[in-house]
Amino acid sequence: MKNKLSQLKSSLAEIRDLQYIAAILSWDQETYMPPQGARERGEQLGTLAGLIHERFTSPKFAKLLDLAEKEVAAHDPDSTEARLFKVTRREFEKRIKVPSRYYQELSQTSALAYETWKKAREEDDFEKFRPSLEKIIALRREYADYFRPYEHIYDPLLDEFEPGLKTKEVQAIFDELRPHQVALIRQISNRPQVEDTALHQYFDEQKQWEFGVEVITKFGYDWQRGRQDKTAHPFTTSFGLNDVRITTRILPDYIGSALFSTMHECGHALYELGFDPALARTPLADGASLAIHESQSRLWENLVGRSYPFWEHFYPRLQALFPTQLGNISLETFYKGINKVAPSLIRVEADEATYNLHIMLRLEVEIALISGELDARHLPDLWNSKMKEYLGIVPPNHTLGELQDVHWSHGYIGYFATYALGNLISAQWWQAIQRDIPDLNDQIRQAEFGELLGWLREKIHRHGAKFEGQELVQRVTGSGISPKPYIQYLQKKYGEIYGF
Amino acid sequence: MKNKLSQLKSSLAEIRDLQYIAAILSWDQETYMPPQGARERGEQLGTLAGLIHERFTSPKFAKLLDLAEKEVAAHDPDSTEARLFKVTRREFEKRIKVPSRYYQELSQTSALAYETWKKAREEDDFEKFRPSLEKIIALRREYADYFRPYEHIYDPLLDEFEPGLKTKEVQAIFDELRPHQVALIRQISNRPQVEDTALHQYFDEQKQWEFGVEVITKFGYDWQRGRQDKTAHPFTTSFGLNDVRITTRILPDYIGSALFSTMHECGHALYELGFDPALARTPLADGASLAIHESQSRLWENLVGRSYPFWEHFYPRLQALFPTQLGNISLETFYKGINKVAPSLIRVEADEATYNLHIMLRLEVEIALISGELDARHLPDLWNSKMKEYLGIVPPNHTLGELQDVHWSHGYIGYFATYALGNLISAQWWQAIQRDIPDLNDQIRQAEFGELLGWLREKIHRHGAKFEGQELVQRVTGSGISPKPYIQYLQKKYGEIYGF
Repeated sequence: MKNKLSQLKSSLAEIRDLQYIAAILSWDQETYMPPQGARERGEQLGTLAGLIHERFTSPKFAKLLDLAEKEVAAHDPDSTEARLFKVTRREFEKRIKVPSRYYQELSQTSALAYETWKKAREEDDFEKFRPSLEKIIALRREYADYFRPYEHIYDPLLDEFEPGLKTKEVQAIFDELRPHQVALIRQISNRPQVEDTALHQYFDEQKQWEFGVEVITKFGYDWQRGRQDKTAHPFTTSFGLNDVRITTRILPDYIGSALFSTMHECGHALYELGFDPALARTPLADGASLAIHESQSRLWENLVGRSYPFWEHFYPRLQALFPTQLGNISLETFYKGINKVAPSLIRVEADEATYNLHIMLRLEVEIALISGELDARHLPDLWNSKMKEYLGIVPPNHTLGELQDVHWSHGYIGYFATYALGNLISAQWWQAIQRDIPDLNDQIRQAEFGELLGWLREKIHRHGAKFEGQELVQRVTGSGISPKPYIQYLQKKYGEIYGF
Repeated sequence: MKNKLSQLKSSLAEIRDLQYIAAILSWDQETYMPPQGARERGEQLGTLAGLIHERFTSPKFAKLLDLAEKEVAAHDPDSTEARLFKVTRREFEKRIKVPSRYYQELSQTSALAYETWKKAREEDDFEKFRPSLEKIIALRREYADYFRPYEHIYDPLLDEFEPGLKTKEVQAIFDELRPHQVALIRQISNRPQVEDTALHQYFDEQKQWEFGVEVITKFGYDWQRGRQDKTAHPFTTSFGLNDVRITTRILPDYIGSALFSTMHECGHALYELGFDPALARTPLADGASLAIHESQSRLWENLVGRSYPFWEHFYPRLQALFPTQLGNISLETFYKGINKVAPSLIRVEADEATYNLHIMLRLEVEIALISGELDARHLPDLWNSKMKEYLGIVPPNHTLGELQDVHWSHGYIGYFATYALGNLISAQWWQAIQRDIPDLNDQIRQAEFGELLGWLREKIHRHGAKFEGQELVQRVTGSGISPKPYIQYLQKKYGEIYGF
């Protein structure tokens, strides 16, 4: 007779397989599925979601969980077994609190909301989307209700993406960060601006693809365990520990898009490829949280990929690929171009200095909506006034304003903060890495990323979801999530570029 | 409260989804999966197979089946409801007779046998494969045992691929066919031989691809509901009624491979794309049998794709694509080339006149192995003596002999006959079609395939698996499976080509 923990692991392996399978179906849908396959693919994903929920909440599973608990008590609380049990118990408790009817309703409402959102964008008509948004908000409030008592109604929503983190903690972090970001942008705006016209030329798609592949191969992306395809929106997805795929999007008239998105997704993928094989087919074979995940993608995209030493190596190669476009553009001009700061309307196109302000705005808006302080009909006004306050610009229409992000239409509320937290955490890692690898810049200048990747694997990747996000940051850096290293990083970098 | 038949349909929809999902995973494995993803993919497919078996054999499902039976009694026996129930009941009865332990063992043995088979081929060493083959045979005998009493031990195996068909029926059909095939080959060998050197030149892969796409687009393949990719071995797979994909393999030094394989797979795909939408997510959304499926692929590949009228339209287009290679080759020479008859060692490369003899040999060998008449150690001898008898040639080694096919290593015994039956049935359809569409050849000469496809959809495709193979042939042609139309077709075609 197998012990209960082993039996629990067998059940979890089956569930994890079903989750990977759902990821394969979604990947295929985004990459290669013929157009008319969508309806049936939706049915299949629905069947899988139902099976996963059924398996995770069955009385048999509940009983197994109780029995395994006794065995786990004998393990070190930091052991994989104890952590696996803790994460599983948490997920179970969350799932049984919410009736499965709720998930069906959310899924149907979101499917409809997504279609409505697309139409509303096309017609630049917020009122068209508003009823859907209101339904989503009502449903997410209902979700929070299942988790009463809570300290803040936004807590259960945030917890979906950032396990364990509380709303007031995020608010405290952002309150500390905000004035520095606003001041930085003011400093920059008082200096002569940089040029990035060289980036906006025609760049052959195939060559862009090849350059991206060259870069991430150097980063250490393992093509035996992954691949890259093209999709409308880049993403990373895992079908197991040895099949982690990324996608990219290539714009022929702007070299920055594919270049940084490929590095960004590679950062996510390196994380998932670095999980300890002992975590295979368990819920621990996952990122610690979305913020930790984003800290990996941002680290490779920004701290490595937008750094001067990186381009000391790669710029001559890029020039050789595009001699007509870049032959006469100096490394300094190019470097400044890819780091140009300018308040802009669209979050996903924002530079490092302004990006987090887009996030703070969204967090405030979401909390106002969920807490009921803000009636959805006044959302555009609040959006615009905050844009004016933080970035000094006002969207000329809804599509470039509150209708720009897909998240709400998917039913995701509580997601955005993880982007900014990822930025902050990436700088915390970077500070620790620079301490441990004093010649890091020299290595990057040689396109040697082995020691860097080794550090990330050892300190972060291998643990998977064993530790919650905050706990992991604390363990590795000795401090909780803090905006200070990021503020220092921005000050130093932009001080050099803009001369202050 | 839903009626029981509706409840049964809901259960079946979930099972059908899981089968489609398994097909998606396999397709990805053959097309795009990175090499190291294989082990985890195997686990995921195992989880799916287990779930499907669990759902199909659960006590709950068994009870539902019994309850639904009473409702079905009120329906016309030819109605979709009655047939759906019949097919489901049959599958259920088959599944519960066999312990799930058996399937695990077969699956593990096959996985190993496949690896051994690949090695044995590489080393041209039958003895290396023999122990695996013996295990497979023992397991397949065990499978047959679960279906005692049977008329013939081979019946339960054949039934896996050709529901309802009996060994003695296939033997009777082949006994009638054999002397005609042998005589035909003798007739041909006494005439001046045809040349096909023009087919064996360098043909640009991309242009081959484009030509294939042009042809099957004309056939009516719907790219909104399907796609084509490249794999080592071409196949067709369905992920639903609106996502039916094909694959092809392009050889740069032989134009015949991709050309006919694309048409062949398109024939399979048109069948699956033609199922009545009312059959969606039921076990009836499937081919009637492998022979019926093969009759569709062979019809498009051979009766259309190797016909003179077809090339009257398409040959000038092919010449325009490959002026250097084909500019000086006449239509007649090309047509004869693609229909060249020559006894050969490899089944998959055999022409229409010799192909069925390869199959008959295999059927006899399989029956001898399963019935215990033949010790596996004497398989190569029996193989070679039959090759000599039927085709007048003897394989110089094992790889070109009894080791050539993958089927046994996968645990498939009882499969091969369906290939020859498919050929025979394709000619039966053709005879009926020519009666119903008198100007068929003129239409083909104009590359107009709409009426032909319409006929196939109406008579065959839309029914899916509502009728068993033999029953469908009887309903459409008024006769059971018969070799006569195929013999007449071969006699006429090769009489013209070889002048007898």
